Amino acid sequence: MDERQPARRPGGRSARVRAEVHQAVTELINERGYGNFTVGDVAARAAVADSSIYRRWGNLATLLTDVALTRLDARSPMPDTGSLAGDLRTYAAQVAREITGPDGLALLRLAVALSHNGRQGVKAGEDLLAERTRQLQSMLDRSRARGEHAPDAFDVLDHVLAPMYVRVLLGIGPLTPEYVDGLVDRLLSPRPEQRDGER
Amino acid sequence: MDERQPARRPGGRSARVRAEVHQAVTELINERGYGNFTVGDVAARAAVADSSIYRRWGNLATLLTDVALTRLDARSPMPDTGSLAGDLRTYAAQVAREITGPDGLALLRLAVALSHNGRQGVKAGEDLLAERTRQLQSMLDRSRARGEHAPDAFDVLDHVLAPMYVRVLLGIGPLTPEYVDGLVDRLLSPRPEQRDGER
Repeated sequence: MDERQPARRPGGRSARVRAEVHQAVTELINERGYGNFTVGDVAARAAVADSSIYRRWGNLATLLTDVALTRLDARSPMPDTGSLAGDLRTYAAQVAREITGPDGLALLRLAVALSHNGRQGVKAGEDLLAERTRQLQSMLDRSRARGEHAPDAFDVLDHVLAPMYVRVLLGIGPLTPEYVDGLVDRLLSPRPEQRDGER
Repeated sequence: MDERQPARRPGGRSARVRAEVHQAVTELINERGYGNFTVGDVAARAAVADSSIYRRWGNLATLLTDVALTRLDARSPMPDTGSLAGDLRTYAAQVAREITGPDGLALLRLAVALSHNGRQGVKAGEDLLAERTRQLQSMLDRSRARGEHAPDAFDVLDHVLAPMYVRVLLGIGPLTPEYVDGLVDRLLSPRPEQRDGER
């Protein structure tokens, strides 16, 4: 019942609380879906005080974004294979694994929810998207630095990520390696009307 | 307060109830989001008895699917312009208008929800998808009958519909006519590795 934290381990209890709160959020999203639980529910599940969550995250939307960003960061290190095709294939396979994994659908639906959940939610959704785009952009920038003709990040979103997201969201078939590689190959294949300087 | 229906107008009251129930569902989806209202809420909003809804639709998932299918049917008559490029551009522009309209996001999120909302929801989501695919397939079949090389319905889903869905769901920018036409043109442009017989 002692709320003071031991001075010699700054972050020890703090990191443990963060992990427990993140775990509680992931469970609640899976069980109830976003929008169907409160900060109080998270606090009860994680066995911490409501006030601890408000003090640290401010509101539910910020907490949900922190969870989503942490999962995306932890699960999607950007590959660096030496070629754009290799990087994109590895990246697409990672995303496919992530969104078809046990918490993947919950993460996707969370991203959708965050982008429309009032002003705080929109900001949170934008942060999530900006982080994802930043990761992707660094990979494409490396490719351009090698002299490759790289698509822009929105082309990757539209023609590699979006098809996978929609198939998972709508529950259409498995994302086979052939399907995922095919999306990348299609994006990278030159098109007749593509002119120099066109992006 | 007379619950008996006039015998000379079969379907009159029935059609009115259906329209009122559909309107109530659309309002509740916009206000609260799917999953956050019950058959009882719909009945109260539409000023009908719960039992009328259960008798007619059986459960909430079936009612939601009926609403979504009706909207998709009513809003997406398949174009028949005489060319595949014309049909697809017109179709894509229709879908863009529909999903960026006042109820569009609600319809999209409903489709996502229906595909994962238990067994009844999965069935309902599949019905929705099957209807959409059937509409699209008839357009592509006409194109093949004219001797054009048409993509298959899943290519249209992956590279025309999915990018628009994801941009609307994530709240990214407007769907400009240039952007929408660009998706169609990109899908229809031949690719070097495309061989005869490949679909």
